[in-house]
Amino acid sequence: MRDLTGGRSPGTVGELGEFGLIRQLTSRLTSTPAVRVGPGDDAAVVAAPDRRVVASTDILIEGRHFRRDWSTAYDVGRKAAAQNLADIAAMGAVPTGLLLGLVVPAELPVNWPTELMDGIRDEAQVAAAAVVGGDVVRGDTITVSITALGDLRNREPVTRGGARPGDVVAVTGWLGWSAAGHAVLSRGFRSPRAFVEAHRRPEPPYHAGPAAAGLGATAMTDVSDGLIADLGHIAEVSKVRIDVRSAGLDIPAQMADIGQAVGVDPLHWVLTGGEDHAIVATFPPDQKLPARWRVIGEVLAPSALPQVTVDGAAWDKAGGWDHFSAPSEH
Amino acid sequence: MRDLTGGRSPGTVGELGEFGLIRQLTSRLTSTPAVRVGPGDDAAVVAAPDRRVVASTDILIEGRHFRRDWSTAYDVGRKAAAQNLADIAAMGAVPTGLLLGLVVPAELPVNWPTELMDGIRDEAQVAAAAVVGGDVVRGDTITVSITALGDLRNREPVTRGGARPGDVVAVTGWLGWSAAGHAVLSRGFRSPRAFVEAHRRPEPPYHAGPAAAGLGATAMTDVSDGLIADLGHIAEVSKVRIDVRSAGLDIPAQMADIGQAVGVDPLHWVLTGGEDHAIVATFPPDQKLPARWRVIGEVLAPSALPQVTVDGAAWDKAGGWDHFSAPSEH
Repeated sequence: MRDLTGGRSPGTVGELGEFGLIRQLTSRLTSTPAVRVGPGDDAAVVAAPDRRVVASTDILIEGRHFRRDWSTAYDVGRKAAAQNLADIAAMGAVPTGLLLGLVVPAELPVNWPTELMDGIRDEAQVAAAAVVGGDVVRGDTITVSITALGDLRNREPVTRGGARPGDVVAVTGWLGWSAAGHAVLSRGFRSPRAFVEAHRRPEPPYHAGPAAAGLGATAMTDVSDGLIADLGHIAEVSKVRIDVRSAGLDIPAQMADIGQAVGVDPLHWVLTGGEDHAIVATFPPDQKLPARWRVIGEVLAPSALPQVTVDGAAWDKAGGWDHFSAPSEH
Repeated sequence: MRDLTGGRSPGTVGELGEFGLIRQLTSRLTSTPAVRVGPGDDAAVVAAPDRRVVASTDILIEGRHFRRDWSTAYDVGRKAAAQNLADIAAMGAVPTGLLLGLVVPAELPVNWPTELMDGIRDEAQVAAAAVVGGDVVRGDTITVSITALGDLRNREPVTRGGARPGDVVAVTGWLGWSAAGHAVLSRGFRSPRAFVEAHRRPEPPYHAGPAAAGLGATAMTDVSDGLIADLGHIAEVSKVRIDVRSAGLDIPAQMADIGQAVGVDPLHWVLTGGEDHAIVATFPPDQKLPARWRVIGEVLAPSALPQVTVDGAAWDKAGGWDHFSAPSEH
């Protein structure tokens, strides 16, 4: 085991070894009062004041969910954490803890996983949560598996199943920014920076999930597969139809410019782009919503039309993202 | 998306697609009263009656932690779940829920992940827990990431840090059986069956963890890296020395026979074999222990000797397992 404190190159994870890497990773972490037993034991212990725990797992794989030449390890960490924390928020819960399962090749430089850890830690801190445990193993493909835990603060979870005809559909956060940034990057450009940054490091509105639960949201999800696909999940489970009014959607001028440059209707990014982790929810029609929520549609009774329509008609582009049929990285 | 109900071959996960596979997997699951929101939403909600949740994550990779020619998908599922459930038990907690992060190649036959899921579900049921959520993505290497959740039932967690000089060291469950089975399999044999089965499907004594907490265990862990390595973790965190008395260890006659056949001292398997997920704990010296616990050593004040000794002397074989320096599958 090498001593890494002397300013020497940190070497590879294979040189450092499993226990050495785990020590490096855990030494970077910070804690919160909710963490009763942190990393280093058989399991972590985290406060669950509400007598229920909200839990969600996501996996990211190099080449499929991120590329090392497009994103730094730090950004991958922020993004991986954000994706899971957004799932907790989308149930109406407040994130409390993250667990990290990490697969790393032996030849990977040590600073890649340590910077990843820094990103996960910092994104957790944005949501007032902490990394509480994990596992590290050697393998050929960098794989980042994160489980997020959260607390409902005595509110009922907001599932996908409670939307009722007459409800309004509202969204908060960003839509299509990550997809536009991806389009920029995949054409070899690195600007406009705001969209590239949005692709590298989403900023989900964590606070909005619990707030929406407090406002009486009837159904809620985060936008990870694309707005139409994710509204489709709500429509399917709630047994309703949802109509999106495209005039309600925000298409910034700069996004329209990118669309024109690359020959893509920016509405496509807004309707089908995931990874920004906006939060979309349905509310009773008389519910007054805070300024950061934008009403983008309404819940209707089921009909012969598709479960999600745009301006009353089927949206003719492929909605969402199926990881198994996808030809390449996204 | 193919309809799989007509008795046709289930095909590959690539043909079925991500959402189809997730439907196949979740349709096999059973629930428990602790599951408030199960699979299919942004996150699961699980009861945490004690106002704290115990959580642990482990990752298994094909070729490193399991081989498809040695273990069925069902057995891999049982083993992956067992490994995580044992971590919960080793804190003194009762398992409540599991989350599965799964990476599968597109060309994998669908029955592999479905049988894996059956194994995870059945092992969870042994511990009275349920699979509550997960994520499935496509990738080159089968990767199984499991997070287990548990409830402490108002007892304090038993960490690795509470062993005191004078305590006795006791173990329950199996030691060395999986390692002996691995030795059999790696020489191309498939018997003795009991040891091969122990390698394919460990049987951790889940109930013993909470029971040990109730008996006043001062420190506890499950044996996953090998007895000496795992006692080393307790000794290090508790700042004590631990002496194992080899006469207290059980070496079944059949294990001795295998050792003779393959030229390995079976004590090596018992002292360094992980994967059986026995539970080892330290107890105050006056604590009467149930019959299934075997006293195997004692806790001493730290000294110049190694933190873990066998019959008062250093154990001269490599202890435990470092995933990064290991040359091959184990």
